[in-house]
Amino acid sequence: MDITQFLKNGASFFLPNISVDIVILGFKDGELKVLLQEFDGKWCLPGGYVFKEEAVGDAAVRVLEERTGLRQPFLRLFQVFGDSSRSFAEEFKGLMKRIGQEWHPDLWINRRFVTMAHYALVNIEEVQPTGGIFSMHHDWFVVDDLPDMLMDHAEIIVASKNQLRRDITLEHISFNLLPEEFTMPELQRIHEAILGRKLERSRFQKKMLSLNVLERLPKPKEDAPRRKPFLYKVKEENP
Amino acid sequence: MDITQFLKNGASFFLPNISVDIVILGFKDGELKVLLQEFDGKWCLPGGYVFKEEAVGDAAVRVLEERTGLRQPFLRLFQVFGDSSRSFAEEFKGLMKRIGQEWHPDLWINRRFVTMAHYALVNIEEVQPTGGIFSMHHDWFVVDDLPDMLMDHAEIIVASKNQLRRDITLEHISFNLLPEEFTMPELQRIHEAILGRKLERSRFQKKMLSLNVLERLPKPKEDAPRRKPFLYKVKEENP
Repeated sequence: MDITQFLKNGASFFLPNISVDIVILGFKDGELKVLLQEFDGKWCLPGGYVFKEEAVGDAAVRVLEERTGLRQPFLRLFQVFGDSSRSFAEEFKGLMKRIGQEWHPDLWINRRFVTMAHYALVNIEEVQPTGGIFSMHHDWFVVDDLPDMLMDHAEIIVASKNQLRRDITLEHISFNLLPEEFTMPELQRIHEAILGRKLERSRFQKKMLSLNVLERLPKPKEDAPRRKPFLYKVKEENP
Repeated sequence: MDITQFLKNGASFFLPNISVDIVILGFKDGELKVLLQEFDGKWCLPGGYVFKEEAVGDAAVRVLEERTGLRQPFLRLFQVFGDSSRSFAEEFKGLMKRIGQEWHPDLWINRRFVTMAHYALVNIEEVQPTGGIFSMHHDWFVVDDLPDMLMDHAEIIVASKNQLRRDITLEHISFNLLPEEFTMPELQRIHEAILGRKLERSRFQKKMLSLNVLERLPKPKEDAPRRKPFLYKVKEENP
């Protein structure tokens, strides 16, 4: 579907008034990062609409795969943003003009949209970012240092971070941000970045090992500068 | 709005394809209970639709107040049920016939609906149940012993229970199921009912007191049969 067809016929393909947005989170250089795409001079979350014959959850999986190339990474719906004034309409005027399309307020995409906000946890090295229908520009941004964002997308990212902070205290999901093999310090840095505070090394290691989901590999990490830390991976029965 | 007007003109008032459903949970006789209403021989969750000019969250608050008489009890969105086949249509045929309305598949209410599933925690003694537009019959059912339920509403209740089990381990929200003044054994029974297992009395009490959100009242509970347990309430600054 090209952009003209999308704007013209979208109403016949998609559920009205419903969208999905995905906060795609990765970890690099000691910081939690989010994948954004450029939209007419601002930045926004990867997102999309739900086909009339498609489950909401399947739409989120589809959009995520389209934009990252990843099949089924960790993905969770965490909130609905449903204010009555929540609309793309104003933001759309400039872009429509630029691509030579006539803007009118009754266009389906200018209506109010209730968005199902998801977050995804990915190994940043495995992602092959791909722009959506409106944009080929995308980049990773530090979650605490966002550029000028579209609509309420900055608020959605803040909410996702709060949710993730809560979720990692109950569930062993932080591994999803790492490559298959990782060291304990790498895992600790991820928890510190999400929680926003330093953790005590030996207590963290003890807690992680007590979960009984990690398997220590026979060889230590080779390219570590001084002492070679052990490598771990998640046990097979704990995907 | 009466039922005829609702069925005829609903499409012009409400957002299409979006509904809210609320698992209203209370605690009585040692058991977690859910408020259900009768719908054409089955039982269903209290729910409703979102006015075109209304926030999704406000719609949930409105429906909850309409059905319980309570203003702003604890209410949380916990999941979206968005399967592509999720529709009321078949269930509606009998009821439409009974009220002398013509059923046809294009009626707005027969379309696919994505529902925003919420749960509410209420003090069951304060609730004044009121039926919705389709039903004057409502009753409290033990969460683990549900009657014949409409559509996927039994599944929504199970999901709410799982969510609540998770939430009470992180947040002090169980107090919402109690009257203003309560004893420690009463609070413990609620946690046991939600978690589905017995808790050790002294450890539970110690944990609850360590949260520093409870205030012990000067007088013990008067109508207790043998020993008179202390009464507690939530401190003012922890609503």
